Amino acid sequence: MSTEDFRRHGKEMIDWIADYYEQVEHYPVQSRLQPGEIGDSLAGAAPSQGEDFAQILQDVGDKILPGITHWQSPHFHGYFPANTSGPAILGDLLSSGLGVQGMLWSTSPACTEVETRVLDWLADLLGLPQAYRSTGSGGGVIQDTASSAILCALIAARERDSGLRTNRDGCDGRQVAYCSTQTHSSLEKAMGIAGLGRANLRQVEVDEHFALDADRLAAQVKADKAAGLRPIFACATLGTTSSTALDPIAAIGSICAAEGIWFHVDAAMSGTAAICPEYRYLHDGVEYADSYCFNPHKWMFTNFDCSCFWVADRAALINALSILPEYLLNEATESGAVFDYRDWQVPLGRRFRALKLWFVLRYYGVEGLQYHIRRHMELSRQLVEWIEADEHFEIAAPAPFNLVCLRHRGSDEMNKRIMDEINKSGAIFLTHTKLNGRFVMRICIGQTRTELEHVERAWRLITETASRLRTDGKQG
Amino acid sequence: MSTEDFRRHGKEMIDWIADYYEQVEHYPVQSRLQPGEIGDSLAGAAPSQGEDFAQILQDVGDKILPGITHWQSPHFHGYFPANTSGPAILGDLLSSGLGVQGMLWSTSPACTEVETRVLDWLADLLGLPQAYRSTGSGGGVIQDTASSAILCALIAARERDSGLRTNRDGCDGRQVAYCSTQTHSSLEKAMGIAGLGRANLRQVEVDEHFALDADRLAAQVKADKAAGLRPIFACATLGTTSSTALDPIAAIGSICAAEGIWFHVDAAMSGTAAICPEYRYLHDGVEYADSYCFNPHKWMFTNFDCSCFWVADRAALINALSILPEYLLNEATESGAVFDYRDWQVPLGRRFRALKLWFVLRYYGVEGLQYHIRRHMELSRQLVEWIEADEHFEIAAPAPFNLVCLRHRGSDEMNKRIMDEINKSGAIFLTHTKLNGRFVMRICIGQTRTELEHVERAWRLITETASRLRTDGKQG
Repeated sequence: MSTEDFRRHGKEMIDWIADYYEQVEHYPVQSRLQPGEIGDSLAGAAPSQGEDFAQILQDVGDKILPGITHWQSPHFHGYFPANTSGPAILGDLLSSGLGVQGMLWSTSPACTEVETRVLDWLADLLGLPQAYRSTGSGGGVIQDTASSAILCALIAARERDSGLRTNRDGCDGRQVAYCSTQTHSSLEKAMGIAGLGRANLRQVEVDEHFALDADRLAAQVKADKAAGLRPIFACATLGTTSSTALDPIAAIGSICAAEGIWFHVDAAMSGTAAICPEYRYLHDGVEYADSYCFNPHKWMFTNFDCSCFWVADRAALINALSILPEYLLNEATESGAVFDYRDWQVPLGRRFRALKLWFVLRYYGVEGLQYHIRRHMELSRQLVEWIEADEHFEIAAPAPFNLVCLRHRGSDEMNKRIMDEINKSGAIFLTHTKLNGRFVMRICIGQTRTELEHVERAWRLITETASRLRTDGKQG
Repeated sequence: MSTEDFRRHGKEMIDWIADYYEQVEHYPVQSRLQPGEIGDSLAGAAPSQGEDFAQILQDVGDKILPGITHWQSPHFHGYFPANTSGPAILGDLLSSGLGVQGMLWSTSPACTEVETRVLDWLADLLGLPQAYRSTGSGGGVIQDTASSAILCALIAARERDSGLRTNRDGCDGRQVAYCSTQTHSSLEKAMGIAGLGRANLRQVEVDEHFALDADRLAAQVKADKAAGLRPIFACATLGTTSSTALDPIAAIGSICAAEGIWFHVDAAMSGTAAICPEYRYLHDGVEYADSYCFNPHKWMFTNFDCSCFWVADRAALINALSILPEYLLNEATESGAVFDYRDWQVPLGRRFRALKLWFVLRYYGVEGLQYHIRRHMELSRQLVEWIEADEHFEIAAPAPFNLVCLRHRGSDEMNKRIMDEINKSGAIFLTHTKLNGRFVMRICIGQTRTELEHVERAWRLITETASRLRTDGKQG
């Protein structure tokens, strides 16, 4: 594609995306297609000869768009958000255009140094410990997801415990890790991947607020040690996936410190809240953490993928993941004066993801980010008020931030029917979980463009659908 | 950012990138900055108030650009390329704009189905076995890198061998894997990550062409079994990183088949060649492979990250990586009628990377891709001819495709000085390796816009620099 054609088609694509954002709230949020419909609509083989860009763009509208579940709709309240913003999209575009591969400092110094600097900025903004700064013993790195971050933390813990013997000789099935019953499934998956064994993950029971019970954790650690096992890792979550429960990180952290257990804090969703001083209590106790993760690609207006991961002792991470073949040797690496981020992650290659984060932080500024976070918080509190005032509904878990868990009073089946009908209508989208064995609807308010009118609509739809189903039930 | 501002700034960014591509060949290829220079040029903290987009873009030019090593310069011949193209950049832009998270089929059916279909197209184009098609027992998935692909293959192998016991209880240090001394370091890293132990990777010696010696492999497998170990995995490389050596995959594959060893083929760089029928011999024997990987983000004009990974038996992969918490349950998953790609990879989340691949395949067409690949092949052959005709230089390894390994006859130090001087000049960029213990320069011809004039310049620079250093040496 010539640069003239790139200018032309690039601007068409920019307009397409702008049009999309102007229209997206009018689309059915969840795709209504059946399995196979999109695949069947595509050609059976790659074309022999090149096609016009206009034809490709036409197919995006005709064939792809109906198969999109619109995560960027202000009516999207499912899962946790994966929100975007203009500066993030354009920062990512610049990354694609520059096309640098930042595996080593020397393969594009800017790719490493902007990342290091921006993660230092964020460590300040979130009130994270001094040790996490690149100027201290630790530092930050962008991972694709919190799943990858927790895997890296787990491997660093495994190697710190074994003095790198595990890396050399393999696991022995006697290292154990800890989390709560509410911890994200990525840790269980990571236990399998890392050769530690999923059965060696202790899922400690939670309290009535779905937060990890530190006394039970201490007892479990004691029992495991008595059985000759080696406790190596514990994960606390700030904002669990099911209900944004907040594990007591100071209590867990002090147990870990006493036992020499690597302490990881997963704040993938809720960490963003700490940008506002009034929510920074979230991080009380984070000074105990060996590693910490939050995802700007969830609630900080930075498009996926962008998961920020810090360690207090970077040597522990690098020792666990480093490998240096001849073809990657270079002066800068040998000088020891630079970070080579390939040693901070599972893959070798990496793109310039820091650009989008740098764009977001500069374009919004701290006050801009705070404004949007506070707005989502207010909308969530408003929704909680409406739910509490409605005799047919109940709040199913504390809602400290921007996720509201609710139930229609009555059967799980009724709740599931309400959710399914609403999602099928396409008007809004929400997802569910189970808490105390019961079906619970989750409404997460974190999409960049969600405003009061969208939350009002969501609540109206829920109450109207419930009302109709109650009436149908009586008539049926 | 309002959609009006997005239109405006988006078009500015498109023009910035087009300008960049028009200028990039005039920039020093390798960044000349010293460690810390870029970091120090950036603010010490995130700004309180938002900044103008124009100011950010200005800083990209002033502060970021000098810290870029220009992977998209036609003078970039280092490592393996990470080339881009207009349609790839715009496909990736669309992915950022749509901002869908494709962890499950249901979270955006198009994200999964386009990927499945395009990987079927590519399996056809590359002449891969029928089993790799989604309509067969296998299927393809996009990973970030070949490192992640090999980790997934290794874990699937580990679990197939242990009947999923390892996933549950952890490794026992008795499973062993095989590669050659020339295999990419990502496998050794993966052995550590997966808890198998780097010492349990047997790096089999290579023949005079740097290809794995299948007889030695067979002998090593026999010895390991006699020692009570369990051979679970072997990797053959089509196009090693050092010299694009081609391991004999039919011979290795038949050993693996007889011994029940998972056979992975890593064709990260060279796989692209098989798009041309005349190079498809590359894949003779690939029918033995349990998994296969190549990276369109290296040599197929698709910007990083895009590594295509296929398995012959998808159940083996999914069983090893699947986990299903309540909050991800949905009808489509429970029906079994869809692929949920989260079970085909380490992370949970994923972006719509198939768009850029779909754009590239459609915009170029098969014939367009073949044209560019053949052009790079011709340029490489031309360079080999020049080297062979020069009494001061020698070809250091067979050059079946687009990587040329060469040495100045004489000392390693002289070769290193030639390379360092050239790289410091900024005129071109190349990297090195060691073959048979000797320092070797590598010139890879795979950047999208590299033409004859650029290769001529590279060769002229090498010979002129060598000549000057020889003269300096005599005078010194």
